[in-house]
Amino acid sequence: MKKDNNDKNNLMLNKKLSRRDMLRLAGVGGVGLLLGGGAIGSLLASDKKTTSNASTILSQDQDSIPFYGAHQAGIITPSQNFICFAAFDVITDNVSDIRKMFQKWTTASATMVSGSLIGNVNDNPNLPPSDTGEAAELSPSRCTITFGAGPSLFDARFGLQNKRPPSFQELPPFKADSLEPEWCGGDLCVQVCADDLQVAFHAIRNLARIARGTAVLRWTQEGFQRSTQADPKATTPRNLLGFKDGTANPNVTDSKLMNEVVWSQSVDGTAWMTGGSYMAVRRVRMRIEVWDRSTLKDQEDTFGRHRHSGAPLGSKDEFDSIKLDALDATTGKPVIPSNSHVALAHGDGSIQMLRRSYSYSSGLDLKTGQLDAGLLFISFQRDLQKQFIPIQQRLANNDKLNEYAVHKGSAVFACFPGTTEGGFIGETLFGGI
Amino acid sequence: MKKDNNDKNNLMLNKKLSRRDMLRLAGVGGVGLLLGGGAIGSLLASDKKTTSNASTILSQDQDSIPFYGAHQAGIITPSQNFICFAAFDVITDNVSDIRKMFQKWTTASATMVSGSLIGNVNDNPNLPPSDTGEAAELSPSRCTITFGAGPSLFDARFGLQNKRPPSFQELPPFKADSLEPEWCGGDLCVQVCADDLQVAFHAIRNLARIARGTAVLRWTQEGFQRSTQADPKATTPRNLLGFKDGTANPNVTDSKLMNEVVWSQSVDGTAWMTGGSYMAVRRVRMRIEVWDRSTLKDQEDTFGRHRHSGAPLGSKDEFDSIKLDALDATTGKPVIPSNSHVALAHGDGSIQMLRRSYSYSSGLDLKTGQLDAGLLFISFQRDLQKQFIPIQQRLANNDKLNEYAVHKGSAVFACFPGTTEGGFIGETLFGGI
Repeated sequence: MKKDNNDKNNLMLNKKLSRRDMLRLAGVGGVGLLLGGGAIGSLLASDKKTTSNASTILSQDQDSIPFYGAHQAGIITPSQNFICFAAFDVITDNVSDIRKMFQKWTTASATMVSGSLIGNVNDNPNLPPSDTGEAAELSPSRCTITFGAGPSLFDARFGLQNKRPPSFQELPPFKADSLEPEWCGGDLCVQVCADDLQVAFHAIRNLARIARGTAVLRWTQEGFQRSTQADPKATTPRNLLGFKDGTANPNVTDSKLMNEVVWSQSVDGTAWMTGGSYMAVRRVRMRIEVWDRSTLKDQEDTFGRHRHSGAPLGSKDEFDSIKLDALDATTGKPVIPSNSHVALAHGDGSIQMLRRSYSYSSGLDLKTGQLDAGLLFISFQRDLQKQFIPIQQRLANNDKLNEYAVHKGSAVFACFPGTTEGGFIGETLFGGI
Repeated sequence: MKKDNNDKNNLMLNKKLSRRDMLRLAGVGGVGLLLGGGAIGSLLASDKKTTSNASTILSQDQDSIPFYGAHQAGIITPSQNFICFAAFDVITDNVSDIRKMFQKWTTASATMVSGSLIGNVNDNPNLPPSDTGEAAELSPSRCTITFGAGPSLFDARFGLQNKRPPSFQELPPFKADSLEPEWCGGDLCVQVCADDLQVAFHAIRNLARIARGTAVLRWTQEGFQRSTQADPKATTPRNLLGFKDGTANPNVTDSKLMNEVVWSQSVDGTAWMTGGSYMAVRRVRMRIEVWDRSTLKDQEDTFGRHRHSGAPLGSKDEFDSIKLDALDATTGKPVIPSNSHVALAHGDGSIQMLRRSYSYSSGLDLKTGQLDAGLLFISFQRDLQKQFIPIQQRLANNDKLNEYAVHKGSAVFACFPGTTEGGFIGETLFGGI
């Protein structure tokens, strides 16, 4: 995209009309009266339009992330601090209802990630407000909203059987799975991430509201990771076991690599998914109380990394290469235990995927009196069969971490390619129907 | 406290030795080897000491809030973005165990709120780490940790029957209560607030770990409010019903008012609580889906305020006074409905309390398929009988908001006065036993 002065002016306009300012404009007896509702409406419409133009020139360390683009945001976007994840079940049997919902979801999402309220702030007092309002005055907070379809969407209900990507199906059972139905599956998913949890909650809630009559929430999970805002120099975030998580992620700024690892390609044979990505999500409960009683050595042997530095065992730096063949001079055993998490996840290094996980803490498990806390594991990949599944099979069979982690929830979603303004997310699948 | 150059130097030293830096110092092959473990130990000890001295000269808009002081932090402290609230039950019958736990809790809390890890970072590999580690590299994040005792602590188990403040007892039942035992009560409470949820979680988890054998978690709830970091100009936060919440709070910088409204005084007759405060906590589930279908007029009549501005109905500014006797010129009815939340909470304006609530979102209620979200209401007051209870009775009997809110959890706690370095929280109650 070209940067020109006009774009910069649009950006200024966009900046000037934040959620906060629009509220002020529309305040009781405010400019709304001076300009009349129609003028406010045009201002808002104009603002909405410039948002998507201007946002393409915003870099990702700024507060607003573009909604429109070749790919959906929220996949290779650097992780925000919070997630509200929701799986939905479709309750209509009419695919055109789904299409209409995605059209509304797209417009609402583009508005919300720009930091605006949905609809006209001068709401008719005799109707429900068009926006639930709890994100008023809050900044865009790098909010991203990412949509996907589960394998069940391609069953007989909607006539989409022939559209299912051949390699896209429910995950096979893994050894040591302890799945609970209330944390599994879903016809659709919405992943909202933002640096402000209230902004993320607001998005999920308004999308659920828009879905009324077409889809209902099946399960939701909030998550967090360390705040980059509180410490902008912070590096790889730590999970709730105290270890850095995500060190070995592929470089999201390498677009050739992203095409190999993350984005579905036209040669993969499913045209509607070209530019999309497949998500695996697992709700992994951590046995925190047991972990906290294990020794530091046991913890480091479990991960295969030093806790403080994040370096592979026997190395000094977090980003040192994983040397699985290094042997301890005294014992003759591998320095990095072969059943450690890093050894099994890394394998021969030939399989990569993009992890984008969040910690979760959901109060007490009343059955055990222990904390229901752990990891909402999320990965994106070009092909689940070739990436997530073989890695997870290795881990499920042998990972020493399985003593401390239990997979309670599981789902996979085909996350659509992006769309441009005027189009809608999911149009490659639902558009021609 | 005197400010002098020495304090400033200590502050610099304290700043230099953040969690992040200590980790770097103690990193594999790092300065730990150069100085020897003992030297690191003294550095840490010196750091810990200077933290509490230096922290008294930190103002509250900085990242670190002093743990020691005449009052506990986290009561009149301006709200942070997140809360992890935990109620504990004591499982020992020996009050000296409780005292020892509070001594350990105090030391650990002072360390954690300063941004340091508990214990020595050069942990013995053959022991469990002294800190669970997930807050490493994270800043203090304005973390506060506030402790209290529930009425049940004064039963026959510990010989504390005579120490119970006369006006401190379990709350009476309120009309429209729908309490569930798993969200009620507790012998002790720990309220952790911080601008980083991972820092708050870390504190609760480590305190629960320290309590092992003496107290166990009874219930916990995470909460959030709008991020002031994301928008430092933001004013009163909005609750999940989209309305500003906390507008009418008393001014926490008015120490005379705080002595009247919040802090227990020696004339109140319970010496060990002088300088402490009584907390009421209510887990209020909001019927979000029902609310979202109600009209803007109905919503505004429910709160008695304009949604956008937060102003009382009929007024323009959020902080305009509540005029309950103003009548609508056309209908002759009160402009602010008499059953509105603000009318009933305000009453004649003679009763005040300090509210310090957080929104919560805890996934789906599996029974109803609706969001389990709402408000973790928290208030602090000098006397529950004279403040929280009469206000809550007015609200419970008539509040129009009861159509949309259900009280599911409830507890009260006597939050101890603060302590100075070398002392411990709770010493006024447990110290002489």
